[in-house]
Order: sequence, then structure tokens, then C-alpha cells
Amino acid sequence: MTEMDQQVIANGNCSGRVVEGPTNPMVTPLLTDLYQFTMAYAYWKANKHQERAVFDLYFRKNPFGGEYTVFAGLEECIRLIANFRFTEDEISFIRESLPGSCEDGFFDYLRGLDCSEVEVYSIAEGSVVFPKVPLLRIEGPIAVAQLLETPLVNLVNYASLVTTNAARHRFVAGKSKMLLEFGLRRAQGPDGGISASKYCYLGGFDATSNVAAGRLFGIPLRGTHSHAFVSSYMSPDEIIDKSLRSADGSSSCEDLVSLAQTWLSKIQWSSSLRGIFGETNQSELAAFTSYALAFPISFLALVDTYDVMRSGIPNFCAVALALNDLGYKAVGIRLDSGDLAYLSCEARKFFRAIEKEFGVPGFGKMSITASNDLNEETLDALNKQGHEVDAYGIGTYLVTCYAQAALGCVFKLVEINNQPRIKLSEDVSKVSIPCKKRSYRLYGREGYPLVDIMTGGNEPSPKVGERILCRHPFNESKRAYVVPQQVEELLKCYWPGSSDKPREDLPPLKDIRDRCIKQLERMRPDHMRRLNPTPYKVSVSAKLYDFIHFLWLNEAPVGELQ
Amino acid sequence: MTEMDQQVIANGNCSGRVVEGPTNPMVTPLLTDLYQFTMAYAYWKANKHQERAVFDLYFRKNPFGGEYTVFAGLEECIRLIANFRFTEDEISFIRESLPGSCEDGFFDYLRGLDCSEVEVYSIAEGSVVFPKVPLLRIEGPIAVAQLLETPLVNLVNYASLVTTNAARHRFVAGKSKMLLEFGLRRAQGPDGGISASKYCYLGGFDATSNVAAGRLFGIPLRGTHSHAFVSSYMSPDEIIDKSLRSADGSSSCEDLVSLAQTWLSKIQWSSSLRGIFGETNQSELAAFTSYALAFPISFLALVDTYDVMRSGIPNFCAVALALNDLGYKAVGIRLDSGDLAYLSCEARKFFRAIEKEFGVPGFGKMSITASNDLNEETLDALNKQGHEVDAYGIGTYLVTCYAQAALGCVFKLVEINNQPRIKLSEDVSKVSIPCKKRSYRLYGREGYPLVDIMTGGNEPSPKVGERILCRHPFNESKRAYVVPQQVEELLKCYWPGSSDKPREDLPPLKDIRDRCIKQLERMRPDHMRRLNPTPYKVSVSAKLYDFIHFLWLNEAPVGELQ
Repeated sequence: MTEMDQQVIANGNCSGRVVEGPTNPMVTPLLTDLYQFTMAYAYWKANKHQERAVFDLYFRKNPFGGEYTVFAGLEECIRLIANFRFTEDEISFIRESLPGSCEDGFFDYLRGLDCSEVEVYSIAEGSVVFPKVPLLRIEGPIAVAQLLETPLVNLVNYASLVTTNAARHRFVAGKSKMLLEFGLRRAQGPDGGISASKYCYLGGFDATSNVAAGRLFGIPLRGTHSHAFVSSYMSPDEIIDKSLRSADGSSSCEDLVSLAQTWLSKIQWSSSLRGIFGETNQSELAAFTSYALAFPISFLALVDTYDVMRSGIPNFCAVALALNDLGYKAVGIRLDSGDLAYLSCEARKFFRAIEKEFGVPGFGKMSITASNDLNEETLDALNKQGHEVDAYGIGTYLVTCYAQAALGCVFKLVEINNQPRIKLSEDVSKVSIPCKKRSYRLYGREGYPLVDIMTGGNEPSPKVGERILCRHPFNESKRAYVVPQQVEELLKCYWPGSSDKPREDLPPLKDIRDRCIKQLERMRPDHMRRLNPTPYKVSVSAKLYDFIHFLWLNEAPVGELQ
Repeated sequence: MTEMDQQVIANGNCSGRVVEGPTNPMVTPLLTDLYQFTMAYAYWKANKHQERAVFDLYFRKNPFGGEYTVFAGLEECIRLIANFRFTEDEISFIRESLPGSCEDGFFDYLRGLDCSEVEVYSIAEGSVVFPKVPLLRIEGPIAVAQLLETPLVNLVNYASLVTTNAARHRFVAGKSKMLLEFGLRRAQGPDGGISASKYCYLGGFDATSNVAAGRLFGIPLRGTHSHAFVSSYMSPDEIIDKSLRSADGSSSCEDLVSLAQTWLSKIQWSSSLRGIFGETNQSELAAFTSYALAFPISFLALVDTYDVMRSGIPNFCAVALALNDLGYKAVGIRLDSGDLAYLSCEARKFFRAIEKEFGVPGFGKMSITASNDLNEETLDALNKQGHEVDAYGIGTYLVTCYAQAALGCVFKLVEINNQPRIKLSEDVSKVSIPCKKRSYRLYGREGYPLVDIMTGGNEPSPKVGERILCRHPFNESKRAYVVPQQVEELLKCYWPGSSDKPREDLPPLKDIRDRCIKQLERMRPDHMRRLNPTPYKVSVSAKLYDFIHFLWLNEAPVGELQ
């Protein structure tokens, strides 16, 4: 490597392309567990720190009782790796945190450390993934690979968990609904919120309320007003400037308040709507009118501050009809409490009656947004009851992944100095699959993915049209022959280190989102259903199977029953 | 206010003391919901943005099935408020995110916006708190108070949730145990991890593995090595420099590997230990020896990579005895799988047998740390089974608050222009308590807190020794007379804005932690127990009770059954 090459790498480059730093400035090489530094010191002291190690990052079980996961977080991992270097202040802090007996040479070593000798192979971000199959493979000097463990697992765990949660919500809501992420206030800390917004969008949401995330990632933003806005008004007399120009600028209404009040009495006395409500709340009418004066082209009102059918809906319709007189089309309403199925149907009926009674085309199609502690179960229940909701605002349960708040990604040593390593456990599901492996997704005749298979690094890859035996890694009796119609190698190089391998691009968020949506659509439906989904098969080659079990027997002590 | 005063405030000051910016640089005035800006625009357009509003921040239900919560996050809230100003870039982004029809004057208004007219009253951070009682009261121009809603709720919600979770873990583990927070890799995003470390310490943990949090907050750090460290070794032959100077520097051992191997055979052939194990795993012995060479004064080994009793414990003891020959005291072991109660007891027996057999004083007291998916339930189960664990490393369940991943803090308008406001709901628990209130904690004869009471802002405060009627805010029949022995006013001024009220200091984290521990200890035990705890009483004064119900009837529409 020439000095210039080194310089390029030292600036977050690899293969000559700059990678920006992590989105969150708190993601630094110190965002790791202390034991990564004590181990690094022990490796260094034993002169073992440069030994070439291979680690697999994977999870053991799909979340939310499902049979699939969406992989996310890769770009942030590469941003960390590309910019992985210690400042002098950080090195001083590490020195203070380790015993005083640690030798100076170690800190000189840290001073020169970067990821230029690390190679990172990964499944594409936004892919549908399964347990045990490596999401990332990290190859590099063991000390630096270990230092990466904690931040990489942190960056992948929540990202993949919340993306999967978003995808599951999309699945239940259906393609045609608008999904809005409203979780910032309930998220686990500030960038719990920012990450949630990014990855919910990736997993198929349409927009977020989170302004910072909109700015950072270009996610569409949505939002109107809260209950506090409504209750901050006392009466329509408060509104001083009541005038509004018509949409085409040709005329002006001097008093939108009066116009809305006139419409309200027309609605009250209309033959088809009469009797549904009496007096509506006047502070609510004031708030709606004031909001319409500020946003005549995008009027959307929260209608449940006092009473949806007796106050919110008639007040909204009065203001929407006043706007209609001036050539503006109101957007719709938001329901944030009560029986959302029932209220959405009643609201729809009311809108249709208005359309008919007053001859306002399209009024019946007014958009209805529902919010209030929604989750997979409540969306499913709404579907079963029948409803007229067009858009969902989802917060707490989505962003905190309330149904299962953690994905258990792990980072396991599978090879050192070309020697395969295995991690044993009394719990078979925790035994690691040794070796630097390759993994493939095999597709069947109907275009569905059939099985993922891991092979040793030097085995020939599975071939289209050629029969291959796929074995369960730990269960002798589970095996199947597959004749793939398409073979997709899963791990690609995203950080070649000092090797000359071509490096995959980090696509823009929008493209990752498209990939995610396409991958989810390509799965066989029985893997995706909410109730008793069929597990997707994850397998190893016959050769890798034999090797795993040879190594296992070799490492495990023979018991003695007493 | 003079120009100089304004300047002082403009630099994150108030009452002349500088407040640093938020710990996470991602916490900016853009970390809010879009609707806070659309509402701000509508308020501005209606010339209502300067109206003085009062908001209460509170939660409705204690988490984790318990009857108490610990309040945390205040310092980060004040840091945000003290530095709340928009950059030109941020203003440009807000302009892009709002409809093009929004007038320029609004963005000029944002340009001059800060929290110099906002007053913040809060319960002290680290206090034990209860549902419905305001944690924070924000008074200020309605537009800016609304902009603060989302970030304040975000900063308090998770902070209080995870602090409470930590306190609950401490309660079950008992005072004498060492509690280590190991959650970074499973936390919800990077500062999910950093916040978790801070607030678990606040809630009574002793240390964290998270280096970045250790640096930011001065939290003690802990950590040793992982399974990968053990499996990265193949055999003791790998270790090149095997020499170690004795603790007092007077002599040197040329080959710690041989010394450990000698001890291993002595253990194997000792009369009291014979037969427990055969051959131990030699790569594990190599890893332990290598680690001891790096950290002779703080040798702590993870003993479950191969087999705890047949390999890990004898290997550990061999290395610990070799260190003992050189005047070093090993620290202990960590168990990360299997039956922790059983294994800790077996390990203790083994250590005691070594102490007796080889006359090594204190060897039997070797520290035993347990980890592996621990939570309140598993700690409780360990206590019931009996165990010999001295320290717990707790991760996933602690930091993600797996048992309940969100606290539902809300931010409700309670007064505008000195007019009390109420938010109604069909669900009584969601009705807000109107008015700018004061709140007090009343203590009984035995020193326990008896009840929290909220009163109107102008009511006289409860007095020691004077009987006062405490009423349930919504349940007519629940009321009780109390004669307090001590009266504590809960809300103190932490940000006086442009008022001349004295401002409370933001204490260092260590002091907040001490406050938390003392407050928890002062609670009556039946409120704290895990099973069927007694609810702590939260009440309002008779006068406030009457006013709530007057306002409620006034605002609620009268139904008509059809």
C-alpha cells in the first residue's frame, strides 16, 4: 500500500470513495464495552493482536413471533468502520480506565489503529433475513475486530428490530393505507426516536412526524395539530384577522368565522343530518377556523377533543365547506380516541351525506387518519370489524418494539489464523456455526426463496438446475434436496480493507426501502402470515454439517455420570 | 430586561449560570414533531403565539406493574431549554417543510425565539414520583411551550422508565450485591445505550461496561473478556512471553504457563477435589493464563466457554493459585450460561475446598459474577433457590425495559391566559387535572410519605400538624383526612426565564443517585414490594376537586340517547 493509499483510507475512504461519519456523533470507537479494551490489551500483550480473525454477526430467533426479519443498520456500521480512529483525548480516557500497569506501547498501538486491515462482507441492507445466517462477516486483526463488536451489534440490533416491526405493521395495514410514524416522544431516548423514524420508513412507512429525522434522511414529514391547540381557544371572538383570499386569488372572504358558522347551521338543519348533534363546542370551532386560516390548502383537523360525532365532525365539516366556497379542498380528519372502527364509519357516512346534501363532489372521500396506541393487533382488529380509515399514525408500540423490545444479535468468532472455531453451549440453539462461510439463497420454480444454505468458504457454489443436499445444521434427520432455479450469493463486500476486492455502493435510503418492499413481496405468503407462519428453512451443506459435528465432538469434554 | 441580561440568556444562561448543551448533539429544537411547527404557525398567524400557557408533564400509570416510578431526565431538559435557538439552516428546513403560503414574518419570529420567557418548575431529579402529579410544569408563550413538548417528553420518558427499571432490579438483588449494567449492544440505538448507562447508575447500579458513558458521566467501568477471547486460543504453546514479576517486584516467574499447569495437576490429584473433572480444555487454560499475564492485579475469568465445572473452574483456580504464588489475588469468575444458582454454589464449594486444601486464605471468598439474560424475575428466582452470586451483569431486559418498553408521559395544557383548561376523555384516567397547581408530599408519623396532594396555585399550603382533606381527583367517595408531620413542596424552579425567582442547581449525577437511593429507602415497604404492592395515594384539595368537576360539566356536551 502506498503512502497515498494510506492517506485515502485515513480519511474514511476505501477504494477511493469517501464515507461520511456516523449520523449520531455519539457513535465513536468509545461506544463499546470496556472488555473490548481489556481483551485488546491482553491480545497486544501476548502479541496476538494482529492474528487474523473472522467473526459472524447474526441473530438466533426472529422477533415478534414471526418467521422473518428485515436486516438494517449496515450503512451506519460502514460509516463507523470508515471513520474508526481514536483521538488523543479518547486514548487518555482509555488509559485512565485500564490498570496503571498497562504498557505505553499499547496506547501507541491504539493511536495508529484504523479499519484499513478489516474486511466487511454483508447482506444488502433492507433484505429479508433469517436466524443463524450471518448478516455481516468481519475479517481482520482480532483486536480491532473485537473493538467493533459492541457498536456493530448495537447499530444492527435495534435497526433490524424496528424495521421488521414497521414491515409487520405494513403487512397488516395493507398496501393502500398511508402509514405515519408518530413515535418520537415515546422512543427510547433522542436517537431511539431518530433511528426509529429512519428505519420505519425503510420498513415501509410513508412519513414521520419527526422533523430532525426528516431533515437528516429526507423522509416525508406529516403533522397538523394536537388537543392542546383546540383547548387553547376559548371562543370564535378571539380570532382577529378572519379574512381569507380564495384559492385562485380572485376574491376574498372577510369573515371565515361567520361563513363557517353559517355552514354549521345549514348542516344542523339539513334534512339528512338533523338530530345527530345539537350545539357544538365553540372553542373547537374557533380552533378549526384559526387553523384553516393558517393552512387553507392543507386543512386537517383533530376531531376528538370534546366529542367526535356531536362536535368535532360537524365543526370540521362547517369549516371544510367554508373553505370549499373559496375553492380550497380540506384534507380530512384525525381520530385519536374511542372506537376507531365505529367512528371512522360514522364519519364517512356524515361526509357522504354532506356530499349529497350540498352537492360537494369528493367530500365523501375526505381522508380519515386514526391514531391512539395502535399496534399490529389493533390494526388487525380494525380490519376484522370493518372501518373507513385511510391513514394510521403509529407511535409507542412501533418505535419501542413493545411486543419484543430487543433482537438478540450476537458476534461470534468462527475462525482465527485460518483455524475454524466453535462456541459450544448446553443450549443447542446457542452453538455457533464455525468457519469462514459463504451463504446463498436458493429460489424455487415459482420464484419464491426456498432455503438459505451456508457452505465452507472453499466449496463450489450451488448451481442453477443442480441438485444439492441442504441439511439442518444441528438436527441430523432434517435434510432436503433442492434443485435451485436461481442462486443468490448473500454476502457482498462493503469494506474491502486493504484487499483489492470491489466494494458495493451504499445505496440511498429510498432504494433500500424499495429493496425491502420488493423482498417482502417476493416471500411465500405462508412465511409471512401473522398466525402460525411456516418457518423458512436455513441449512448447511453436507460438508459443512460434517465439519461442524467433527469440531463439536473435538471440543466438548466427555461427561461422567456419577 | 437589559440588553446585557438578554445576552446572558442568549448564551444558555439564566440567572447568570451557564448551562451546557444537551449531552447528545442530536437533541436540537428540530427534535420535535412537525405539528408543533404547524401549530406555532397557526398561533402566530392568529397573533396568539405570545399568550401565556401552562403545561403539565406527567404520566398516568406506574410501569412494570409496580406502584412507584423514579423521575429522571431533568438535567437534559434544562440543557435543551437553556440552549434552545434555531440556526439559519434549521429555519430554512422548517420553511421547506411547511406550505409555501406561510408568511416570512413567522420565520423572523423563529429566528428570535429562545426560552427566555419560559419558566420551568420541576420535581427534583431522582425523586420517587407517582401518576398524575406533574413532574414538570412549563409556563411560557404557547408557541414555544408547544415546541418543547416533544423533546421534553422524549427526554423524560425513557430516562424515568429505565431508572425505575434499574431501581426495581436493585430492590430484588438486595443492597449488598454489585450491579453492573452490560446493555449497550442490545439497547435501542447508540444513545439508547448511553442513556441507559447513565440512568441505570442513577437508579442504583454500581458500574457499566459502556466506555462512552463512563467518559461522559464519570460512571465506574467494568469488564474483562468474552467467549471469543477464550476460543481465540488454541493451546498454551501460543504464549511466547510467559514471564511475570511478583506483585512486590522482588522476584519473577519465568513461566506462568508451567506454574498454572503444575497447580492444575495438584488440584486434579487433591484428595478433596479428585474426580470432579478430568482433562480441562487447554485452549481455555491458555486464554486464562494470557489474560492473567496482561492483568495480574485484576484477574477475572469467564468460565463457561467449554464446561464450567469440568474445565472453566479448575482452569481458573490453577491460574489464580499461580498468581497467588507471586503475591497477586485473583478477583473471581463470571458465569454466563447454565443453572446460575447451582453453578455458583458448586463454584463456591470448589473455592472453599481449594482454600482449605492448599491453605490460601480468602480463596473461598472469590467473587462470582453472573450474567446471561437476567431480569427481575430471574433475580427473584435465584434468591428463592439460594445462590453464591456476588455481582450481576444485566443487559437486554434492563436497558430495553423489556417488561414494558415505554412510559406514557404526556404534556397537557392546564391553563391559558390565566383561564384553566381541561382535556376530557371517555376514559376517566385520561382526563387532565386543570389549573396551574402546586403539589406537596405529606409525611406521616413514622416518617413515610403518606400522600401527594395537588392544590390550586393560590391556595394556602398544607401545614404541619393541621388536618387537611385529601380527595381522589375523580372518585367522589375516595377521600381521607391527613395531619402531616412534614410537608414537602414538590415543584421547584429550575429555569426562571425572565422572572426573578431563585433557580435550583442541577446537582452532579452522583448526588442525584444518592437522592434516588435515599428516597426509595424512605418509602413504606408495602408500596415497593413486587407482588401486589399497595398503591400510593395521589389526591387533590377539596377546592381543586370542586373546580375540576365544575369545569368538566361545563365543557362536556350533554348526550342524547336515541
